[in-house]
Amino acid sequence: MSVASDSRYMALALSLGRRGQGNTAPNPAVGCVIVSNDRIVGRGWTQPGGRPHAEVVALDQAGSAARGATVYVTLEPCAHHGQTPPCAQALIRAGVARVVVAVADVDGRVDGKGLAMLRDAGIAVEEGLMANRAFADMAGFFRRVVMGRPEVTLKLASSFDGRIATGTGESQWITGPEARRVGHAMRLRHDAVMVGGGTARHDDPSLTVRDMGVSNQPARVVVTRRLDLPLLGNLARTARDIPVILCHGKDADKDLQRTWSELGATLLPCQISGGQLDTHDVLTQLGAHGLNRVYCEGGSALAASLLANDLVDRLVGFTAGLAIGAEGLPGVGALGLGSLSEAARFKLIEVRSIGPDVMHLWERAEG
Amino acid sequence: MSVASDSRYMALALSLGRRGQGNTAPNPAVGCVIVSNDRIVGRGWTQPGGRPHAEVVALDQAGSAARGATVYVTLEPCAHHGQTPPCAQALIRAGVARVVVAVADVDGRVDGKGLAMLRDAGIAVEEGLMANRAFADMAGFFRRVVMGRPEVTLKLASSFDGRIATGTGESQWITGPEARRVGHAMRLRHDAVMVGGGTARHDDPSLTVRDMGVSNQPARVVVTRRLDLPLLGNLARTARDIPVILCHGKDADKDLQRTWSELGATLLPCQISGGQLDTHDVLTQLGAHGLNRVYCEGGSALAASLLANDLVDRLVGFTAGLAIGAEGLPGVGALGLGSLSEAARFKLIEVRSIGPDVMHLWERAEG
Repeated sequence: MSVASDSRYMALALSLGRRGQGNTAPNPAVGCVIVSNDRIVGRGWTQPGGRPHAEVVALDQAGSAARGATVYVTLEPCAHHGQTPPCAQALIRAGVARVVVAVADVDGRVDGKGLAMLRDAGIAVEEGLMANRAFADMAGFFRRVVMGRPEVTLKLASSFDGRIATGTGESQWITGPEARRVGHAMRLRHDAVMVGGGTARHDDPSLTVRDMGVSNQPARVVVTRRLDLPLLGNLARTARDIPVILCHGKDADKDLQRTWSELGATLLPCQISGGQLDTHDVLTQLGAHGLNRVYCEGGSALAASLLANDLVDRLVGFTAGLAIGAEGLPGVGALGLGSLSEAARFKLIEVRSIGPDVMHLWERAEG
Repeated sequence: MSVASDSRYMALALSLGRRGQGNTAPNPAVGCVIVSNDRIVGRGWTQPGGRPHAEVVALDQAGSAARGATVYVTLEPCAHHGQTPPCAQALIRAGVARVVVAVADVDGRVDGKGLAMLRDAGIAVEEGLMANRAFADMAGFFRRVVMGRPEVTLKLASSFDGRIATGTGESQWITGPEARRVGHAMRLRHDAVMVGGGTARHDDPSLTVRDMGVSNQPARVVVTRRLDLPLLGNLARTARDIPVILCHGKDADKDLQRTWSELGATLLPCQISGGQLDTHDVLTQLGAHGLNRVYCEGGSALAASLLANDLVDRLVGFTAGLAIGAEGLPGVGALGLGSLSEAARFKLIEVRSIGPDVMHLWERAEG
């Protein structure tokens, strides 16, 4: 098969994989395409909750057509008996001739063993096709496995002069409905939407995805040292239906801890550092809880703490064509920068207009 | 001639006209193309200082080929004897057959008289082709003639979170050299670059266009109530070579007024309102001084005063991929907005990446 068609099929596998983003944690969102005689005989992606794996879905669809076929899969097939039998074994049993993999799995239980198992069975194995794109798509999973924390995307919807609300706290309608819709679509691609306690108190948000015709919802995370959130608010009311995860200080009131547990929330006690919740530990706890991709929507104190600790991987800005002025609320609180050279730099990935506003997406530039 | 080729020639005339932007005040930057038998025989644009006019340059180039030709001109030809004989008369004398005009001139001395003069001479006259684009290109001129003030473009080069400097005032290298270069190219398209007194004191800028291989420079305007600018700074040092215009309070120290005059600056006394220079009067004085297009580069107090008085026509943002945090300097000072609905809205005209940064250009949306 030509390199061009290999790339075409892997691009398809990648786009299938992205369908699972926000729905597969703690598993990665993998895509798989099975091709026999230049005909696609099977397509699959990691299913909600992380199982079945993409390869199994695609093999089921291919049936006997998988014999002698080429398999394009965005991540190395697993080699271990977890809650499902290993995908490498399923591929061998199906009699596929060739497996093309975008990136190897760093999970200690796989880590090359899947590819070795395939090679031992006489299957032609190639690795590294479109690896950069695959790594970016599954960066949350890799980051959690390697660094113990999820990938963090920080969103700011602001005026031309960088204010997220007026001095009196008015923040609705800075950006238009189109930007809000794109923002909700972004929530969907993440395992959780995260805000600080101040935002949860002030805005009483539900943090759900609305008007998108979807059934699944990302979890809602609130970073709140004292658990002093409204007990009759939207999050409390809906905690039994859609997960609410509260990252709180170990010193939070025991009665409040019990009350929130009874309301259905998951409580993650986190370390305190300098009188505030340690956002590094907050993310470690969220990683241990199995989250790969977290979408942070502020407020300014949480945004500042994440940025100051260099815990933000992606920035998403929505900028509107109006000025609010210096009395307005800043999107990012005090960072304590000594000089500009200390500021973490982000690389522009995408910029475009969204309705009347500008959307810009940045990724942390290493080094 | 087909409508399509009419548009093509007018588009060329418009692009020629833009070559003069920043160089023709108080005259508008007009472009002209003369076409005979589908061949371009003359091209012209308003020359530095505003004379000769575009039509005269194009007619000179066309010579006898202008006889029976079609003339595309972005603004109605003048009908009055000013420092040059009327262009309408020159077109008649050259024997052109047809004149296509983008927009009529609102200057009281022209105001339809140019077109009438041409029609009376038996020349076919059409008006309104690509009028919107022509109006936008010459908006500074129209605004000055109609409203008595120049068009104001406000530029902000800021971090992702809308800060133009760190808390200690460090502002160099927030955006990259590419954005700075585009910023300098924008200075060139304006009659003057304007800053507030605080910026002039703190940054000691020269406000000139560098490394662009140009000889002409926009004037430098400083809005400074008390004229308390560094007498040994870059502006003072270069005031004899490149115009410096100081908009000051009528109550500014007489000795300072004399000193700055002697240094070569032009002094424009302006009204005070609420303890500050009245930016409405500042712009009126600049309009009376003959400026069509003013490019304001801050600081935050001047930006806020212009925005609060709804005197900003265009916003240009350069956004960099880093966060500075709430201690950083805001690009726009206090605006005193009661609610979001009071904020002037701007319409996105262009957005793109410039080197590592994002450039976004907005125009005041009416109503």
